[in-house]
Amino acid sequence: MADPRFFASSGPQRLADIAAAAGAAFEGDGERRFSGVAPLQAAGPDDVSFLDNRRYAPLLAETKAGAVVLLKAFADQVPAGAVALVATQPYLGFARVAALLHPPVRPVPGIHPSAVVAPDAVVGAGTEIGPGVVIGAGARIGAGCILQPQVTVGPGVEIGDGCRLLAHSSVSHAVLGRGVVLHPGARIGQEGFGFAPTPDGRFETMPQLGRVLLGDFTEVGANSCIDRGSQGDTVLGPGCRLDNLVQIGHNVQMGRGCVIVGQAGIAGSTTLGDFVTIAAQAGVAGHVTLGSQARVGAQAGVMHDVPAKQDVIGSPSMPVREFWRAMSRWRKLVGGNDG
Amino acid sequence: MADPRFFASSGPQRLADIAAAAGAAFEGDGERRFSGVAPLQAAGPDDVSFLDNRRYAPLLAETKAGAVVLLKAFADQVPAGAVALVATQPYLGFARVAALLHPPVRPVPGIHPSAVVAPDAVVGAGTEIGPGVVIGAGARIGAGCILQPQVTVGPGVEIGDGCRLLAHSSVSHAVLGRGVVLHPGARIGQEGFGFAPTPDGRFETMPQLGRVLLGDFTEVGANSCIDRGSQGDTVLGPGCRLDNLVQIGHNVQMGRGCVIVGQAGIAGSTTLGDFVTIAAQAGVAGHVTLGSQARVGAQAGVMHDVPAKQDVIGSPSMPVREFWRAMSRWRKLVGGNDG
Amino acid sequence: MADPRFFASSGPQRLADIAAAAGAAFEGDGERRFSGVAPLQAAGPDDVSFLDNRRYAPLLAETKAGAVVLLKAFADQVPAGAVALVATQPYLGFARVAALLHPPVRPVPGIHPSAVVAPDAVVGAGTEIGPGVVIGAGARIGAGCILQPQVTVGPGVEIGDGCRLLAHSSVSHAVLGRGVVLHPGARIGQEGFGFAPTPDGRFETMPQLGRVLLGDFTEVGANSCIDRGSQGDTVLGPGCRLDNLVQIGHNVQMGRGCVIVGQAGIAGSTTLGDFVTIAAQAGVAGHVTLGSQARVGAQAGVMHDVPAKQDVIGSPSMPVREFWRAMSRWRKLVGGNDG
Repeated sequence: MADPRFFASSGPQRLADIAAAAGAAFEGDGERRFSGVAPLQAAGPDDVSFLDNRRYAPLLAETKAGAVVLLKAFADQVPAGAVALVATQPYLGFARVAALLHPPVRPVPGIHPSAVVAPDAVVGAGTEIGPGVVIGAGARIGAGCILQPQVTVGPGVEIGDGCRLLAHSSVSHAVLGRGVVLHPGARIGQEGFGFAPTPDGRFETMPQLGRVLLGDFTEVGANSCIDRGSQGDTVLGPGCRLDNLVQIGHNVQMGRGCVIVGQAGIAGSTTLGDFVTIAAQAGVAGHVTLGSQARVGAQAGVMHDVPAKQDVIGSPSMPVREFWRAMSRWRKLVGGNDG
Repeated sequence: MADPRFFASSGPQRLADIAAAAGAAFEGDGERRFSGVAPLQAAGPDDVSFLDNRRYAPLLAETKAGAVVLLKAFADQVPAGAVALVATQPYLGFARVAALLHPPVRPVPGIHPSAVVAPDAVVGAGTEIGPGVVIGAGARIGAGCILQPQVTVGPGVEIGDGCRLLAHSSVSHAVLGRGVVLHPGARIGQEGFGFAPTPDGRFETMPQLGRVLLGDFTEVGANSCIDRGSQGDTVLGPGCRLDNLVQIGHNVQMGRGCVIVGQAGIAGSTTLGDFVTIAAQAGVAGHVTLGSQARVGAQAGVMHDVPAKQDVIGSPSMPVREFWRAMSRWRKLVGGNDG
Repeated sequence: MADPRFFASSGPQRLADIAAAAGAAFEGDGERRFSGVAPLQAAGPDDVSFLDNRRYAPLLAETKAGAVVLLKAFADQVPAGAVALVATQPYLGFARVAALLHPPVRPVPGIHPSAVVAPDAVVGAGTEIGPGVVIGAGARIGAGCILQPQVTVGPGVEIGDGCRLLAHSSVSHAVLGRGVVLHPGARIGQEGFGFAPTPDGRFETMPQLGRVLLGDFTEVGANSCIDRGSQGDTVLGPGCRLDNLVQIGHNVQMGRGCVIVGQAGIAGSTTLGDFVTIAAQAGVAGHVTLGSQARVGAQAGVMHDVPAKQDVIGSPSMPVREFWRAMSRWRKLVGGNDG
């Protein structure tokens, strides 16, 4: 199904290798070959599919897929002729099968002649520097990175091994760990929003003298922005995932594995523990603390600290159970139904 | 009124030609000439203006405009000396007059020497490729396009005739129809937001193996983002209009003529019919369906399917009449007025 | 504390000079030297710190800072060995000390060979044009500006002295005053969102024939967008500050000193007086007027005019006191607490 203009294929792969990638058990001929991945409703006999969500179980009986990665509980519903690939984590297993059949793009080592790399910048072995890339004085780029066209890396920036900086992303005043991904147009390290009013009614910029530190394997979505710290640093722990158009203010501190969904924003000097989730279009005020595994619902507005493992929603936000109970009472009082 | 540094002028045009462009009837001298367009309150005797909204009718008596495109109902209120250009769609008619007097920029065919175009990429006749543009291997650009400075087009991308890709926009993993416009900084075709948690607390990316398909004459606003599909495609039908800073998640399907206003977002795998309108800063959850001509109000949060022609508002959203009735009751109960 | 890879240092400075910069009075040895700035809890004896907010007063007794800019009321709480720099505006004073110790980047005059500057464009004395910058025909760039890598300036654009256009920002159809700052990826002057439906169900663009005018010292955040006017201009008065990912529609008029926080949006043809504040993720509808010093709370939705000095919040918005009174009553009726 994957358009060969855009996605490489590793050619047909043996079922045994696919099962190994998926961490799955199967019965049958390990030499059978599969060439692609597809959703249950679109897959053909050469495709591997998956079932992860009980809601889609009815599609299983109808699928034409040659193999399906799924939980043991669904294995006996696989149609005749299809292979059940029984895994404890079908979605993860399927992701690994997809990566086996369609391997990610590898860097093509070298520096494009149109790139402008400062003489004292360091570029690691096996790194690809695309057309129009600009790398400032004293910057250090790790090994095995891809810098797509038009990326700019400011003076002194440090970037770990295996990072991917996609088209038009920019980084300044920042230190990036290994395997960091900046999606197109991401903005890292610009000045935070800080200024002092003057007696004559102007604003003077508070010099923003901190940095952005991005932990290993953190990803930042397209056109998202992470401002550098004002004096301390803005810090994202390892493995954070930011979607598109997200705003992170100066001095924000995040633990590991935080997930920030599209168009959400976190104001300055706010602290997140580990594995905090902020859903789409939510906002978190400045100078508050969200404990580990706290979850903030879509479009919520958080103005106060949230304890660990607490789920909140609403603007202003409240614990999620209270919110829905209040909504239910509210609707009894004043009317209104879902729509 | 249009600043000649920024807008070309076709020189004074005959009233007869202007009326023809507007699809308007008039009385008087078809040889009279007009050179510009302007709002009622700013127009002079050489300008054409328009009246489209009853609210602005009081400005008509005072206008100095030489001609006014308007509905027949207002024609007798045009001041002496001004020409009434009577049209059934004054706003559309005026748009065409404006385009007649200030023709849009045409491509200046050729490839700027600083552009980096892959040897096997195809660039159509009459297309303008600006400074710093990067076009990847196997990409196909149609005829009569404009690619402004710093645009990047990824490998294999297909772009129809007459498209305009404005400064700093980027496209990968995508097929664009004819007459598509990407405003500055628009991001098309990057990876969607999909990953699987691992047993040791990391996230692994689900390979995003789909594409973005943009229908003919669709326009995408500045710094807006459209992620490619995860396995199927993200599809926008013909004639959709997206404003600035809009987020479209992977696998979203839109019909024709949908309008998505600034800073709105649509989460993954959601389906819109034809002529759906999503107002500013609204959000639509993933995996829901909005019927044709449904309208979502500003800042609404849609979590469930919306039937065709239904208007919804609020977060969580409800039908618009229920919302305002509930707001009215709510205000009687707890107070609060518009402000 | 400031990382020397990213921030210049003016070397140790005399206390007398620091006090003069801060507009502060002090007692003791004016020859004592200080080399950096830091928050109270991180500062050492060579650092200057500040206290601006009563909430942080407890940190004062514990600080290791060598000097602290603060109000007279706190001066006697400065620990032994530290200098009290007594100022009437400690935050402003500290900003000036920080700028003295870490002077902002100055332009390095010259045009990088990879830049593409139209032959008839004018570039002022002492201006730095970075790699990959593109400047269109007839554009005029003032003296002492910095244009970072990949900036594009469209034909005819006029930019005053001392402006900073940071990486990847783009400007077209615009006139910028002195000292304007565009942060990375800011989009200025693109087409507004205007089109007319046709009888056969298409949309035709209303030609956008106005400009963007940015007053002196206005700053626009990363990836923010300001559309040009449709016929009149989009105008921001002097000294406005826009944070990241802000959307300003066509024909918006702002007075001086307005502050628009991250991810807020203002729809077309709306007018703001002077010193209006719009907090994060708020939205203001089109064609409304906000009086001078009005303040709009975070995530508010403003659909009507707001009088001068009025504070509003909520979606739809209401005066802030009514909102909190209504919220309090609402919570008594239906439950729910902060979270």
